[in-house]
Amino acid sequence: MQNKINHVAIVGGTHGNELTGVYLVTSYLENPSFIERTSFDTMALYGNPKAMAQCRRYVDTDLNRCFALKDLNDHTLTSYEAERAKELNQLLGPKNSESPHVDFVMDLHTTTSNMGLSLCISTKDPFTWQAAAYAKDQLPELNLFYWESKGKEPSFISSIPSSGFSVEVGPIAQGILRPDIYMQTDRIVQAVLDFCHRYNTEDVRHYGEVEIYDYASFIDYPRDEKGNLTAMIHPDLKNSGYNKLNYGDPLFQRLDGGTIYYENKESYYSVFVNEAAYYEKGVALQLCRKKIVNL
Amino acid sequence: MQNKINHVAIVGGTHGNELTGVYLVTSYLENPSFIERTSFDTMALYGNPKAMAQCRRYVDTDLNRCFALKDLNDHTLTSYEAERAKELNQLLGPKNSESPHVDFVMDLHTTTSNMGLSLCISTKDPFTWQAAAYAKDQLPELNLFYWESKGKEPSFISSIPSSGFSVEVGPIAQGILRPDIYMQTDRIVQAVLDFCHRYNTEDVRHYGEVEIYDYASFIDYPRDEKGNLTAMIHPDLKNSGYNKLNYGDPLFQRLDGGTIYYENKESYYSVFVNEAAYYEKGVALQLCRKKIVNL
Repeated sequence: MQNKINHVAIVGGTHGNELTGVYLVTSYLENPSFIERTSFDTMALYGNPKAMAQCRRYVDTDLNRCFALKDLNDHTLTSYEAERAKELNQLLGPKNSESPHVDFVMDLHTTTSNMGLSLCISTKDPFTWQAAAYAKDQLPELNLFYWESKGKEPSFISSIPSSGFSVEVGPIAQGILRPDIYMQTDRIVQAVLDFCHRYNTEDVRHYGEVEIYDYASFIDYPRDEKGNLTAMIHPDLKNSGYNKLNYGDPLFQRLDGGTIYYENKESYYSVFVNEAAYYEKGVALQLCRKKIVNL
Repeated sequence: MQNKINHVAIVGGTHGNELTGVYLVTSYLENPSFIERTSFDTMALYGNPKAMAQCRRYVDTDLNRCFALKDLNDHTLTSYEAERAKELNQLLGPKNSESPHVDFVMDLHTTTSNMGLSLCISTKDPFTWQAAAYAKDQLPELNLFYWESKGKEPSFISSIPSSGFSVEVGPIAQGILRPDIYMQTDRIVQAVLDFCHRYNTEDVRHYGEVEIYDYASFIDYPRDEKGNLTAMIHPDLKNSGYNKLNYGDPLFQRLDGGTIYYENKESYYSVFVNEAAYYEKGVALQLCRKKIVNL
């Protein structure tokens, strides 16, 4: 576990069209007291200013997949986002350093999927999980999604230091603000900052177990030979965040009518259902298992 | 009034990230019988293929503002969309010709705003209004929004021939498909095609009057000196499509809390509330008057 948290970074606009994080960072920069705690420093910063200026997710490539160590060290990668990732790595890391500039990164995202309030966690780091468990204790509607790409080094910005996660709140369209989503995201930020402060200053409760959704696999949309969709998420599924998907449930509706059913004998919980940015990634929804894990 | 409708064009993807129209056109191209009527020809086509490929509204400039005659005739305008507008004008028009290649353009859009089912009409053309009145008769939840920019020539693609309108359905995020929105949009298309066929082949009812929402003005977001938003649409307003806005109603919520109220003594109906693409146009919502007009 961490000795003490000295520096926390809150990042918004890692995806330039997810305005909730962008404007929360703007608000924190203008009102530093919103994120001040006496026992550590908090830095608020924008992830991808060039994409923000164009209100796009990214300019050349998805910034939040650019933080694998081999890519940060690869000087042949010269896209805008590859360069920006190296800058952010210098500012917040460097990654795998024993004394990175920040101890914890909280990266603020939104999704067009009905994920409610979620943390996406891609590390087994104990401090991260205690912070997540505390946040869930404060906000019981919060879901903890464990998303580790098996066999691959995490490439999210939150993986620069050993502790950190992404915050995902939805559903909300890209390119807009809504007070409910904005305030829910801020509540998560505040709970995590509170935890860091309590961890630094008092004998905090240790959470022994927590409920998580553990990433298993994904399903793409049915497509034609050109890659165009031939079906869309079925209406019965569209509002599902963390809902159980059982054999025989409607999954997709074809453009010309008919239904495609879920035909896997094993039941899973669905997440990131109908996330706009994942159409190009070949992901219609992700499947996960619900588990209680010991911390 | 038109003598007879011989050619109808259905356009999707005029904005490349509004996937409902894109995929309806795909579906119509693959299943021409969906839009076939015996008394006229229907053409389905994509408006902005380059923007569609990037899942963006546009590449250089908003295509659906490129169809004013002076711009179509201006050879110094060489953006991708200015060029594409000229191509589309050759294919569907030319504009102001006595015998354009199509008699009616139906342009399929979505909005992140809660507009329900709407037609945006920017012409006084009697045939257009009879078609709109028929569609509303078939689909009573349909709203007719009369959006004529005072003193300016309409620059929408639907203004190429004398008859046509835009279909707007929402709320839906950019970059996604949803069966409900998809099927609602198709129902509007089918009703309008039915009207064209009935107009050609029988003695149709003449609609004498219809309820419309008549565009009056717009309100921008409160912004700082750099143009950044300092407030967002108030939660009480966010779900409003065609709702009445009265003096003293909450209008915006500041990023740091407080409420900004609507302080106009005259009441209006609000439309296009929180449309993502209008943040950059300086439009938080549009105001209109509800009227019964004689046709």
